[in-house]
Amino acid sequence: MQTVRVDTPSARYDVVAGSGLLRTLAPRIERVVGRLPRRVFVLTSPPIWALWSEQFLASFAEPPVALFLPPGESHKTLSSVEKLLRQMADAGADRGSLLIAFGGGIVGDVGGFLAAIYMRGIPYVQVPTTFLAQVDSSVGGKTGVNLPEGKNLVGSFHHPVAVFADIGVLATLSDRELHAGLMESVKAGIIRDRALVRFMEEHVDEVLGREPKALEKVIAASIRMKAGVVNKDERESGLRMILNLGHTVGHALEQATNYKALLHGEAVAWGMIAALHLARTRGTISAAQFERLERLIHLYGPFPPLCLGLRRVVAATGSDKKNVGGVRRFVLPIGIGDAGVVEDVTPEELEAAVGYMLARAKAKTPAKRS
Amino acid sequence: MQTVRVDTPSARYDVVAGSGLLRTLAPRIERVVGRLPRRVFVLTSPPIWALWSEQFLASFAEPPVALFLPPGESHKTLSSVEKLLRQMADAGADRGSLLIAFGGGIVGDVGGFLAAIYMRGIPYVQVPTTFLAQVDSSVGGKTGVNLPEGKNLVGSFHHPVAVFADIGVLATLSDRELHAGLMESVKAGIIRDRALVRFMEEHVDEVLGREPKALEKVIAASIRMKAGVVNKDERESGLRMILNLGHTVGHALEQATNYKALLHGEAVAWGMIAALHLARTRGTISAAQFERLERLIHLYGPFPPLCLGLRRVVAATGSDKKNVGGVRRFVLPIGIGDAGVVEDVTPEELEAAVGYMLARAKAKTPAKRS
Repeated sequence: MQTVRVDTPSARYDVVAGSGLLRTLAPRIERVVGRLPRRVFVLTSPPIWALWSEQFLASFAEPPVALFLPPGESHKTLSSVEKLLRQMADAGADRGSLLIAFGGGIVGDVGGFLAAIYMRGIPYVQVPTTFLAQVDSSVGGKTGVNLPEGKNLVGSFHHPVAVFADIGVLATLSDRELHAGLMESVKAGIIRDRALVRFMEEHVDEVLGREPKALEKVIAASIRMKAGVVNKDERESGLRMILNLGHTVGHALEQATNYKALLHGEAVAWGMIAALHLARTRGTISAAQFERLERLIHLYGPFPPLCLGLRRVVAATGSDKKNVGGVRRFVLPIGIGDAGVVEDVTPEELEAAVGYMLARAKAKTPAKRS
Repeated sequence: MQTVRVDTPSARYDVVAGSGLLRTLAPRIERVVGRLPRRVFVLTSPPIWALWSEQFLASFAEPPVALFLPPGESHKTLSSVEKLLRQMADAGADRGSLLIAFGGGIVGDVGGFLAAIYMRGIPYVQVPTTFLAQVDSSVGGKTGVNLPEGKNLVGSFHHPVAVFADIGVLATLSDRELHAGLMESVKAGIIRDRALVRFMEEHVDEVLGREPKALEKVIAASIRMKAGVVNKDERESGLRMILNLGHTVGHALEQATNYKALLHGEAVAWGMIAALHLARTRGTISAAQFERLERLIHLYGPFPPLCLGLRRVVAATGSDKKNVGGVRRFVLPIGIGDAGVVEDVTPEELEAAVGYMLARAKAKTPAKRS
């Protein structure tokens, strides 16, 4: 079990990663908030609840009120939020109530947002059940939902009071989700952690074989990287931007495929390849580093091929939320273990990077394991 | 012109009250935020815009994108919020955009909430156009909307970067709205400002006659009281509760009349009378103080009579948002100029206070001016 401390100007809490956390949740939460309040809510999805409710409920003297969000990005909407807020009000939620978000990234984002805006803010706990949610979305306080006009256009910064990432829950995750989630760890390595890059290169089989020690190491390193960045830049005014490596093009891919064909991590995988190309062109990484990092991404593939036109993808990069005042922002790796943000990417550079990525994505490059 | 500073752990900004602010808005905002961003939005209501858009736009080189919220509490909903967020996204709002909330309390609450959750928070300016909004809702960072289950159940704390309260705009306010709004000033006097109580007793005709000097004095004193309380207790964990004098019963009256029969200030007027009764019974104010304060409230009346049963009103007090863990909270004046919060009001005390209030409210007590 490993504990990582998040410590920002507005919040301080622990992220605990390890095995057996789910069965012991209630006392763990009480150690953070004191006695559980009169009303505890758990937001989850029906498939997660079907698999894990028994373990989840095991440590609670009184079962929390369960609220359900159907799986899928299409339910990450304001109308879901409204329905759930009304269910909370109906069930007597007050300012002292506690919400537990128990599920993947969407449950975490929606649950955090519910907690952020119900009566102008109640405390909540993240219990992420996917790899992606454990290493990324449950840490940092970003919450929110989509609009038809774009992803995550609505939300709040609202930190959980604690995060419990139980590695045992990953047992039921599909390979596809695991591979996609691991892209966040690859990203973590590229932008901040050379040792993690090396570990992931050298332990592909253990990680993909879900060996607990290997998983815990990758997850804890990823969380530590993210917490370190969030601690220095809570509101994404500067440093936190580097967490968006692969996201400018990644979001464009998700948008161009209507958020249906690709998992977030898969879109980020292809987006990172575009960013690597750009970085190599600009010389912030060498040709050898480019090859090494692209190979690392494919080691944790394969990812779904893309059948998209260049124009479509390039156009979609214009609507990214990180753009302020019409400037298109790109995160570029600087060597291995560092990254920076550039705002002066020319249309030609962008087209070349997206073109390279699309060519690779059509070729269905298989994962070559050493 | 008077300037009051709000200074909390999370925000610092000026509230400016005076004449002629509307015509000079753009340079005043630029003095706060620097050059205006590429996209400036104004949320307003069609009647306000019809009356004041010319003055509003006079100082802008480029007119802000106008968004409209129809008047009335029935539009203070999450579905209005969704529609407006989508309009912002469509018009190219980004993280650097600025929103101006130009209207009454509902426009301010909804505008502030849009700014709180669009891309997890953009800056906004309050330009309140009603007395109530000028002295109360535009100061303190409370934003939000209603659910069918209750008023203001959804929202955020999100402070504006500045508040400009132009007294000239009050010229077109109906007498009813002015009288209702002045209840916030009466409340301010009762809980924190003896001098304001005396001024309002001695200058009824000037205030109700909308003489600019008298209005500015009452408005600035009310804002100063509110800012002072918010500065000490931003999140309503203690002291800020006293701002809710008259609100426990007031909210119950609004709820029991479906938010249709009473303006907020009118409900608070009757709610304060119930609270005064309770305070007299408990001895936190004397019989003479009770009479003096009840008379002050009626001086700024008359308020609509109430045709409600005792049971209905008493039951509705149970659903107030300020209740945590089932406890019913009451703010009681302590003499004139101070107040405290009690949680041990018995059903008998509550019934006696509500009964007194309902008897007065049926009698349609006319305002007796001295």
